[in-house]
Amino acid sequence: MLSFRSVFAGTLRQEDMGGGALITALWLRKSAGHVMLNPLRLSPFSSSRRTVFGLSASRCGLIQRKMTENGVASRRGKVLTIDTLNPCVKKVEYAVRGPIVQRALQIEKELKEGAKKPFSEVIKANIGDAHAMGQRPITFFRQVLALCSFPDLLDDGSFPEDAKNRARRILQSCGGSSMGAYSASQGIDCVRQDVARYIERRDGGIPSDPDNIYLTTGASDGIVTMLKLLVCGEGQTRTGVMISIPQYPLYSAALAELSAVQINYYLNEERCWSLDISELRRSLAEARQHCNPRALCIINPGNPTGQVQSRQCIEDVIRFAAEEHLFLMADEVYQDNVYADGCQFHSFKKVLFEMGPEYSDTVELASFHSTSKCYMGECGFRGGYMEVINMDPEVKEQLTKLVSVRLCPPVPGQALMDLVVNPPQPGEPSHANFLKERSATLSALAEKAKLTEQILNTVPGITCNPVQGAMYSFPQITIPERAVKEAKEKGQAPDMLYCMKLLEETGICLVPGSGFGQRDGTYHFRMTILPSTDKLRILLDKVKEFHQCFTQQYS
Amino acid sequence: MLSFRSVFAGTLRQEDMGGGALITALWLRKSAGHVMLNPLRLSPFSSSRRTVFGLSASRCGLIQRKMTENGVASRRGKVLTIDTLNPCVKKVEYAVRGPIVQRALQIEKELKEGAKKPFSEVIKANIGDAHAMGQRPITFFRQVLALCSFPDLLDDGSFPEDAKNRARRILQSCGGSSMGAYSASQGIDCVRQDVARYIERRDGGIPSDPDNIYLTTGASDGIVTMLKLLVCGEGQTRTGVMISIPQYPLYSAALAELSAVQINYYLNEERCWSLDISELRRSLAEARQHCNPRALCIINPGNPTGQVQSRQCIEDVIRFAAEEHLFLMADEVYQDNVYADGCQFHSFKKVLFEMGPEYSDTVELASFHSTSKCYMGECGFRGGYMEVINMDPEVKEQLTKLVSVRLCPPVPGQALMDLVVNPPQPGEPSHANFLKERSATLSALAEKAKLTEQILNTVPGITCNPVQGAMYSFPQITIPERAVKEAKEKGQAPDMLYCMKLLEETGICLVPGSGFGQRDGTYHFRMTILPSTDKLRILLDKVKEFHQCFTQQYS
Repeated sequence: MLSFRSVFAGTLRQEDMGGGALITALWLRKSAGHVMLNPLRLSPFSSSRRTVFGLSASRCGLIQRKMTENGVASRRGKVLTIDTLNPCVKKVEYAVRGPIVQRALQIEKELKEGAKKPFSEVIKANIGDAHAMGQRPITFFRQVLALCSFPDLLDDGSFPEDAKNRARRILQSCGGSSMGAYSASQGIDCVRQDVARYIERRDGGIPSDPDNIYLTTGASDGIVTMLKLLVCGEGQTRTGVMISIPQYPLYSAALAELSAVQINYYLNEERCWSLDISELRRSLAEARQHCNPRALCIINPGNPTGQVQSRQCIEDVIRFAAEEHLFLMADEVYQDNVYADGCQFHSFKKVLFEMGPEYSDTVELASFHSTSKCYMGECGFRGGYMEVINMDPEVKEQLTKLVSVRLCPPVPGQALMDLVVNPPQPGEPSHANFLKERSATLSALAEKAKLTEQILNTVPGITCNPVQGAMYSFPQITIPERAVKEAKEKGQAPDMLYCMKLLEETGICLVPGSGFGQRDGTYHFRMTILPSTDKLRILLDKVKEFHQCFTQQYS
Repeated sequence: MLSFRSVFAGTLRQEDMGGGALITALWLRKSAGHVMLNPLRLSPFSSSRRTVFGLSASRCGLIQRKMTENGVASRRGKVLTIDTLNPCVKKVEYAVRGPIVQRALQIEKELKEGAKKPFSEVIKANIGDAHAMGQRPITFFRQVLALCSFPDLLDDGSFPEDAKNRARRILQSCGGSSMGAYSASQGIDCVRQDVARYIERRDGGIPSDPDNIYLTTGASDGIVTMLKLLVCGEGQTRTGVMISIPQYPLYSAALAELSAVQINYYLNEERCWSLDISELRRSLAEARQHCNPRALCIINPGNPTGQVQSRQCIEDVIRFAAEEHLFLMADEVYQDNVYADGCQFHSFKKVLFEMGPEYSDTVELASFHSTSKCYMGECGFRGGYMEVINMDPEVKEQLTKLVSVRLCPPVPGQALMDLVVNPPQPGEPSHANFLKERSATLSALAEKAKLTEQILNTVPGITCNPVQGAMYSFPQITIPERAVKEAKEKGQAPDMLYCMKLLEETGICLVPGSGFGQRDGTYHFRMTILPSTDKLRILLDKVKEFHQCFTQQYS
């Protein structure tokens, strides 16, 4: 089919409009910025050629549809159009990099080209991208990566011995001692061993088997792979997967792509985004009417909601999964990002094993970690791992086979994952500096978490739960009725209208709550706590001011 | 369901075998290497609990199936079993890392543990993994990567200025000047610009638009993403994709996973694995009986077959795609690996544009490149790009949205891709050394390509086409009738039996032709030409000797 965007004007020479007819025409096409006149000749194999000229786009649409129904036109024009694209791909949405971010990038370009705006820079508080917001990498990690990249530096006296030792150990595990070799598809052996030992230390000695560790291309890759294994069935037996609302949109996007059923359970905003088992039950019972629920996804600490689950809650979730025969997926990429007093990270693995063999021998669990968050924030390296517990050995074989098709996760990301789980130890030359850098980042984040909650809660019409962990606040915002109406007229979510105006007026880029899901009639935004304290303060003040103006404007 | 592998022995205490019944039992389970006795307690919510004891595996299977049919047992036991796994995943096969490679890894472990074998090391000629076979990385590339990883080195006098300039340029394009920041999902701006300029140089000035460049996680990622867009329909209208036989098994694996129809067209072994348009026609006509063919995949230079397509052949393929309304996918990751006299690499893009606007304005093309092959062989970094031509703008938006869900390709891989398309230039300090390293690798490969063909063709019962390009030979082997019979009795492909025996007796790991597809009744193996010349010579002699023994043994 012709793309309507490329049709401007022209005259239609139509020899026959019926099925299988030949249509010759001259048509105008916009290509690489300039309009060209293209004579279309019919090759001997063409059974039809369709062009639409001197017609309005809607009229074109009618004809186009008619001809497609005839089953003729679909044989010419583009092979791949929005109408013939994989319908599952069309359903995918990913707000964290959606239209608002596209517009932010555009505004950045406009600013560069000298456009006058009421602000001088765009502040991207839409995505948990620590380095982009100025956080410095951990020196030791980068030293080791440099050594692994260019091993001649192993002779350089300026690198500390512990960094060199780590680099040597990683390189010895690489084919030909090079990060340029493929690793095993499951990941480099020694890295998987280090991951297992890290998990054992973290979980108070509960054993972890390197054979259960799969290194991944960021946590996203592991999550999508696990979902891929779980999806089957058609119609009423289609796989359903329970995800929290609000959720991180990777989940909804992956489920859409895999054509699985998304089962929403709502977090309790009134109780600091906690998870109520009664809500899990409600959600599951409803879902069982129309699909086959097979998995339950949990994000702890929460994204975008920043809550940290209590040990009791995790136990309840595990019991629920066991009773209801659900595969558990625990997204724990923010496991070091816990700030609130009295909050502590408990891994699902640890709680599962502490609940005794009735659970630890039966409940199937995949948990995910990443190099992208916590104190390191190394998103660009796409490092990550997953640990699978109680996975059927035949399924594990299938998993290993499946990941082998993509050959291996990026080796520099694997090396970085190794450093995260095996950082400098007491007595090693880099230990003191590592601790200093790590605690500086984590305590700054804790301070910014508090600051965000405090300032936002001073704004009438904004209520913000404590940011107990992770990297985001997800405050509820009151949007005046008139603004809601205006948004609806535009076919926009009201919080999208809000965030878009905020961006245009202040240069602050946030993600509307509608991109994560929220209870009907409530509105939110997600804002990272990653800008430097000074910048964050300015940002929060600007949001405050904007919110007051916005409310006034639409009252 | 219980995994049979984990069931050893036990006694069944069965209270009721019917639907919904409770069964309590003690069962034995192998866990982490030792046998444990696990009492299974029933929670109040269990509606059934199924255990099978003191029974043979086949008897277990019967009961298991019966209970699943009752629709009861499926609610207990593992959530995820081989029977409830995504059926598309089960269909995926990937021979390059299949059972023979698993066995090779096992043998390596056995050797390490002191096992006595008729060889002292396993030679992995199964996969195009240059660094693992001892090829050294390009110094300049690794210097820049080290600088990007640890920018403090920018003050180090021992690094050449051109390496520092490249590193500064890449870092300036990264968020927060760090490879740890996410890049744009389509890839770093300046890298995409460099890729476009590289393509223009390569293709004699034909314009390339950076907006049409998508950086990828290796070429595999780009290929799978494009196939994902193309797949739609059910039954008779299911998307069909034409792939060469023999093929690189990424294609068959991706099509299986996406539940698309694989349409085989056979390369002509008698004419040096060339592509006949008449065979494309035959294959397409047959496919149109039962599916909707939408895309045609070409690998040039060929994998596993090593042929280099003539300009004429590419033109014919493009004309065929245009006539038959197929989306073209050109896998050109071996574009620098051309060895044979009279052969030359022609990109599909270049030929398409030279054919004039009738083709260059209409034929949809995606072409793929990677950092993993050619003279650099940097597989572990998972760098790559694709260029899309004539893609519908709405489809491009969907593509951009789709790739954004995975956030971005690994940034070190993007940086490396940048260096590949923008290597040291004449006049720059690293230029001479870069040329020296590159041509040393390429001329060694050319020599090894020739050597492989020559030696293999001295063996009665082996015929090997010239290795014109890429990194593999794919000789045809005669397998005696008795060996074919033995293999069939074992449920094994005859060339799998052959390669498995070769591995056990010589330590040489090759991939059987059946993993790539071949004409019925013919047998092949794929062998990389990557080992060092000395090692390759030994390897080829061993294959020769083995083949003679094997033939004798089974005559």
